[in-house]
Amino acid sequence: MADEAAVREQAEVVRRLKQNKAEPDEIAKEVAKLLEMKAQLGGDEGKHKFVLKTPKGTRDYGPKQMAIRERVFSAIITCFKRHGAEVIDTPVFELKETLTGKYGEDSKLIYDLKDQGGELLSLRYDLTVPFARYLAMNKITNIKRYHIAKVYRRDNPAMTRGRYREFYQCVNDRRILDGMFAVCGVPDSKFRTICSSVDKLDKMPWEEVRSEMVGEKGLSPEAADRIGEYVQLHGGLDLIEQLLQDPKLSQNKLAKEGLGDMKLLFEYLTLFGITGKVSFDLSLARGLDYYTGVIYEAVLLQQENDHGEESVSVGSVAGGGRYDGLVGMFDPKGRKVPCVGVSIGIERIFSILEQRLEASEEKIRTTETQVLVASAQKKLLEERLKLISELWDAGIKAEVLYKKNPKLLNQLQYCEDTGIPLVAIVGEQELKDGVVKLRVVTTREEVSIRRESLVEEIRRRTSQL
Amino acid sequence: MADEAAVREQAEVVRRLKQNKAEPDEIAKEVAKLLEMKAQLGGDEGKHKFVLKTPKGTRDYGPKQMAIRERVFSAIITCFKRHGAEVIDTPVFELKETLTGKYGEDSKLIYDLKDQGGELLSLRYDLTVPFARYLAMNKITNIKRYHIAKVYRRDNPAMTRGRYREFYQCVNDRRILDGMFAVCGVPDSKFRTICSSVDKLDKMPWEEVRSEMVGEKGLSPEAADRIGEYVQLHGGLDLIEQLLQDPKLSQNKLAKEGLGDMKLLFEYLTLFGITGKVSFDLSLARGLDYYTGVIYEAVLLQQENDHGEESVSVGSVAGGGRYDGLVGMFDPKGRKVPCVGVSIGIERIFSILEQRLEASEEKIRTTETQVLVASAQKKLLEERLKLISELWDAGIKAEVLYKKNPKLLNQLQYCEDTGIPLVAIVGEQELKDGVVKLRVVTTREEVSIRRESLVEEIRRRTSQL
Repeated sequence: MADEAAVREQAEVVRRLKQNKAEPDEIAKEVAKLLEMKAQLGGDEGKHKFVLKTPKGTRDYGPKQMAIRERVFSAIITCFKRHGAEVIDTPVFELKETLTGKYGEDSKLIYDLKDQGGELLSLRYDLTVPFARYLAMNKITNIKRYHIAKVYRRDNPAMTRGRYREFYQCVNDRRILDGMFAVCGVPDSKFRTICSSVDKLDKMPWEEVRSEMVGEKGLSPEAADRIGEYVQLHGGLDLIEQLLQDPKLSQNKLAKEGLGDMKLLFEYLTLFGITGKVSFDLSLARGLDYYTGVIYEAVLLQQENDHGEESVSVGSVAGGGRYDGLVGMFDPKGRKVPCVGVSIGIERIFSILEQRLEASEEKIRTTETQVLVASAQKKLLEERLKLISELWDAGIKAEVLYKKNPKLLNQLQYCEDTGIPLVAIVGEQELKDGVVKLRVVTTREEVSIRRESLVEEIRRRTSQL
Repeated sequence: MADEAAVREQAEVVRRLKQNKAEPDEIAKEVAKLLEMKAQLGGDEGKHKFVLKTPKGTRDYGPKQMAIRERVFSAIITCFKRHGAEVIDTPVFELKETLTGKYGEDSKLIYDLKDQGGELLSLRYDLTVPFARYLAMNKITNIKRYHIAKVYRRDNPAMTRGRYREFYQCVNDRRILDGMFAVCGVPDSKFRTICSSVDKLDKMPWEEVRSEMVGEKGLSPEAADRIGEYVQLHGGLDLIEQLLQDPKLSQNKLAKEGLGDMKLLFEYLTLFGITGKVSFDLSLARGLDYYTGVIYEAVLLQQENDHGEESVSVGSVAGGGRYDGLVGMFDPKGRKVPCVGVSIGIERIFSILEQRLEASEEKIRTTETQVLVASAQKKLLEERLKLISELWDAGIKAEVLYKKNPKLLNQLQYCEDTGIPLVAIVGEQELKDGVVKLRVVTTREEVSIRRESLVEEIRRRTSQL
């Protein structure tokens, strides 16, 4: 139908054009429309309509995005290295069996590979399960590792947009949660599924979570209400002390262990001087099944408006916890290897930084080129290639335009566009005199440098930048 | 059957043990064997036999391998940046349709994702097709990019082992090949499949390739023999000149174009001073369909023995070429964007370096830690944490053992094992005096440093390393 209408519209335009009734503006507009229709209908070679896109939920990173991403990675890796971490890598897919039974309700989000004969494979869903597999396989019991890689989940996370002001961390402990569930009257068999419901408290109000617990998951209303009282609590050492005195919770072995360890953690936080950044929060649950002790999330706070003092949480950018049972699931003898870790949501941090840099007018360089080798006259391609070859051999980052006889103005414009700070210009006279004209792009200053001193001069000038 | 034999063997050992006929050594050996069997049979908790492995054709990288891999990447990225390249990234999977019809006979090696509803997806097979898709999608006609990422192929490449001495590059041009096929009497419709056969000349002798051409692919024996004469040729500018005079080849438009460009390439290589590293080789064909012009491979040469002068090629570590038609396949109007690129086989280069480093006795550090914060007495955990917190805040790469009261000897041993050059030791006396004892691990030299000068001293000493 759309095509038919388009053809009719086209016929009408042609009729008006033939009758010279169309205005010049109208003609230009209609020609553009026709060209667009032609492109949509398949172009010159009658190609089929090809959908030119990346798969749903994925994106490309262009040079500008990659420059930002490399800044983020560099900050994170520097921090990991400062704390003495080693790096490992594992394959992007695992045996399907390796991932089975590790993620609870999230398992449905795993990408499976097609059975093309051979092993059944799945794309990794996180880096934790492959890490546990790696530890068990190599019988490693002590390692402080980081791992930077993509993971794959079949969902469409909505990206929150906004201005973010600061981070804080919230912590809890699975044993405190389990102890709390026990004293609230949750049956053992419902611990994990009720934990999943509590995990939704950052996205849903308590009333909805409560009705999921009671309606969908069959918890008694009384138990739900008791949970409701606990999960409102958050604080620091004071709250830990208060809960250690709680008549019910203090009688529960798991909760007591968890609270004891939480107290120790806050003592360490005091030593590091960061208690103000961390909140003990009884509503924190984390979605995944495999946590066994302390759990935590780093949350971004958003400033409501320019004058507002109110800060609201806009979501988690990192999270993790202790998972002492996972390696044992892979070990033939079930030997336990206690583990604790954190996962940083690079994509989210990256998208926040991307917004911020777009809003600012900072120009982002996508190359590190120090100098453009240029010529002011024609027929100097060979001389440009000889000079750049010398510079490359000396480790100088240099570019040359690929045209045979580029105009000097175009060469200078290229430097402006890409942020190259220096231009090394060769001409007939410079070649005779054994010099190169070095031009500073921002100031337009030009100096003659003896060819044998050029490398040193470029190094000196670009180390100051 | 194997299990049955094991059970019988076990019964025999038990019988001998009961009769006290076994020697102590033998007993220890048998106990170890039994424990291993028990572990293999499923362990204490009656777990099912879980296959603890990575998928076929994949591997993990431990910290040592990653340290080597990072050296390789760093060398490559430095080179790319020296030449002014930008970096991009694309998703690990693409729409299946994006990869369809791009790889010729290799398409069967593509990993597909399971249809779990939604789009049909495949893991990327190379970085070239996603790059072409990216260019078409973003209407980019000029970019000098690099892209470092894994690609996925359903085959089992045999890894050649051995000692490698040097690289050389071989080059050819698809137009020269196609011109050669034409003048040898290959029908147009058989160009690509005969090109595939020529591509096998690095792994198969000519006789086998010829019989594939004639037997499987239905080429006339005369045409095959004419091809056989050409593909033996390799050389430099002299060979190009000779072929430009070749009575048949010089009459073919494609071949003439290809030879003309090859001549220009060798003129540039002369300017860069690297003609000695490059051989024009008429047997080079490259497997993939999408090349349209110059093609090339970097080949490793292996030294036959310590005295041998003979070098033999042990395989390609990089390859690429010109693909002027690929972007047009994605463009709705079929607009062509000429492209040329090279792909480096990191895994192969890495495995060669790994062997070489294993053979040498070079100790590879897997962390960059500058200093271990240690204590000589008990009950100083808090003091160690305070000091390391100061160092971390100043950007010093520091570690601390996690035990509450580690022995000094164990702390020093940790430095020996991991290559940490300095130890900062706090004790009761140092705390009183406001100093820290700084120990150099290799020389065992110890000096007292005022606490406020410690950061500077560590920086000074580790910048010299």
